[in-house]
Amino acid sequence: MRRVFVVGVGMTRVGRRFDKGLGELAAEAIFRAIDDARGARPEALVVGNMMASSLFNQDNLGALVADYAGLRGVAAYHVEAACGSGGHAVVAGYSLVASGLYDVVLVVGVEKMCDYPTSVVTAALAQAADAEHELVYGISFPSLNALVMRLYMKTFGASREALAQWPVRMHEYGSRNPYAQLRFRISVDDVVRSPVIADPIRLLDSSPIGDGAAALVLASEDVARKLSDTPVEVAGVGMATDSVDLSSRMDLLDAPSVRLAAEKAYRMARVSPRDIDVAEVHDAFTVTGLLCLEALGFVERGKAWKEFADGRFGPGDKPSVNLSGGLKARGHPVGATGVYQVAEIAMQLRGDFPGVKAGSPSIGLAANFGGVATQTSVVVLRR
Amino acid sequence: MRRVFVVGVGMTRVGRRFDKGLGELAAEAIFRAIDDARGARPEALVVGNMMASSLFNQDNLGALVADYAGLRGVAAYHVEAACGSGGHAVVAGYSLVASGLYDVVLVVGVEKMCDYPTSVVTAALAQAADAEHELVYGISFPSLNALVMRLYMKTFGASREALAQWPVRMHEYGSRNPYAQLRFRISVDDVVRSPVIADPIRLLDSSPIGDGAAALVLASEDVARKLSDTPVEVAGVGMATDSVDLSSRMDLLDAPSVRLAAEKAYRMARVSPRDIDVAEVHDAFTVTGLLCLEALGFVERGKAWKEFADGRFGPGDKPSVNLSGGLKARGHPVGATGVYQVAEIAMQLRGDFPGVKAGSPSIGLAANFGGVATQTSVVVLRR
Repeated sequence: MRRVFVVGVGMTRVGRRFDKGLGELAAEAIFRAIDDARGARPEALVVGNMMASSLFNQDNLGALVADYAGLRGVAAYHVEAACGSGGHAVVAGYSLVASGLYDVVLVVGVEKMCDYPTSVVTAALAQAADAEHELVYGISFPSLNALVMRLYMKTFGASREALAQWPVRMHEYGSRNPYAQLRFRISVDDVVRSPVIADPIRLLDSSPIGDGAAALVLASEDVARKLSDTPVEVAGVGMATDSVDLSSRMDLLDAPSVRLAAEKAYRMARVSPRDIDVAEVHDAFTVTGLLCLEALGFVERGKAWKEFADGRFGPGDKPSVNLSGGLKARGHPVGATGVYQVAEIAMQLRGDFPGVKAGSPSIGLAANFGGVATQTSVVVLRR
Repeated sequence: MRRVFVVGVGMTRVGRRFDKGLGELAAEAIFRAIDDARGARPEALVVGNMMASSLFNQDNLGALVADYAGLRGVAAYHVEAACGSGGHAVVAGYSLVASGLYDVVLVVGVEKMCDYPTSVVTAALAQAADAEHELVYGISFPSLNALVMRLYMKTFGASREALAQWPVRMHEYGSRNPYAQLRFRISVDDVVRSPVIADPIRLLDSSPIGDGAAALVLASEDVARKLSDTPVEVAGVGMATDSVDLSSRMDLLDAPSVRLAAEKAYRMARVSPRDIDVAEVHDAFTVTGLLCLEALGFVERGKAWKEFADGRFGPGDKPSVNLSGGLKARGHPVGATGVYQVAEIAMQLRGDFPGVKAGSPSIGLAANFGGVATQTSVVVLRR
């Protein structure tokens, strides 16, 4: 297997970007990533995106983004895995380099969500659920996660106030990340008094709606040395699936797709959860962040809420978690999120992440999923 | 680069499949492909599909199909490249094996188009065009291709009757393919008197709307020998892009994405166009089939219509073209088409294609694109 390296990263600040269309926004991140990789010339492009079809009537997204980025002609395709599209696009891009097909591959995640009213976006997001067995009953994505959160609280005895520590800490980190959408601090009181979205999920348990794009330049080993002084190796990748509809799962507090994807990535990178210094996990809602920590093997089942509330997983801890602010505060432009995570971890390992730093991490991890841990990708990076 | 082989193929007959949903239809093809590969156990799944989001509100398609096929847990993602989704999914699946990530990978293309009125499907298909620069003017996909067909006829002096030879021959082949949607013969007279869809395109120049799924089992070299007595090697793959909107192209009668994708695939397989014995090309409309033959290097620019009308490209010719009946008569369940093509070529090389046979071909090619040659994949197979 050929070794693959991240040699360039680029991100836009997550937020309302009424000034640019999908192609232009993706190109903004791409240009930054190419600049960061000393003007690398990508031979192929993988685009992670969830909602271009449902919100913008736009398919052929690979070709569209290639053209906006001045790359007309390159190989391209679009990867969809709902909110996990970005992470899966990273794995797809990895395989294009590792296979020997291409030496330099660009991966971009892009999403525009702010052009429409929240009701329209919520309906588009609900396409991550099972259309035949869940959507027809009027379910939304927050309502599905609310079932999981209630069960988590009841089963493990987690209090509302303890869970609120998650968004509080994410906003603290986000306030110091120049790319974050929500750059203000909040208190436990703010969280528990914020409006109910789908009980027990409140507004401040939920990741915001935002536009954003993030890009990576991936390169084979020999090329990587020319394009970067600080290449970061993609040491392991894993993907796994679960049922789309929650009703056919045996245990809603397990997240087997996260566990299986992580096992594959750990095995490939020859590391264990204890070796991970810094991680970005998928906290679309407070409870999904906690489930990630448990399924990734960072903490025992049912204990993430307590250990997090007690202060673990901060900067310098093993691992430091979501120093970007996570989906909660950096933002969650759904199909782009997985690429943001990998870009952030790569920057932590290089030492140039512009927000809260993890110290001097050697090994990092990004975990991104579509649906309620319906399909997960895990990427392990090494300095 | 690890060698990759097709060790199993499975197809459903293209047609109206009101009896099954997307997941069930995909599973039907998957079960056949797995049976054909001696009960192979895939570790990963790539799903090619265009319209699950726009017609069925369904994302997370990789996980959904995995679950319906009894493969819950496997790695999975969904590839979109409009009508070229299937072929790009094949290349993505190829890279997952060639990279060493997995030894056995399933690729399935699936599309359901018949559940909705034609007007709804036509609108969904138009997502292959540029939403901001073409769709807003009310353009449809047939109308874009009509511009190209008129220009082709005018520039190269092709007569309406000569062009009609394409669909006539496709229906002849289709009538003998048990998987084809349109299994009846037509005459030149039928074509030129069929209703106008978008002048000069008539009904019988157009591929039909249909439901269908096709699947491949891909395997690494050592595993392939165990799963098949007649493994077919994926000897070369290529992908390339052009602009989405036609107005920004220099020459509407060129198809550079087809040319570039083919060059890459030929180079990788160490073959030239003259070596290809059997091919499936993307005749969504009569004119796109002709442009493919020219851009693939089988015939000079502007001459495909004449040589085809004179009888070239039949069984035993080099290459034999679209013996399945092509998109025109086998049918064009858009996101599945590219996988049908590769399955058909693999069967031609194995000698067990159940329709018109190419003789004893050694090298075959499948060319599939999204949009009007907006993003193309080319796959070269070798016995």
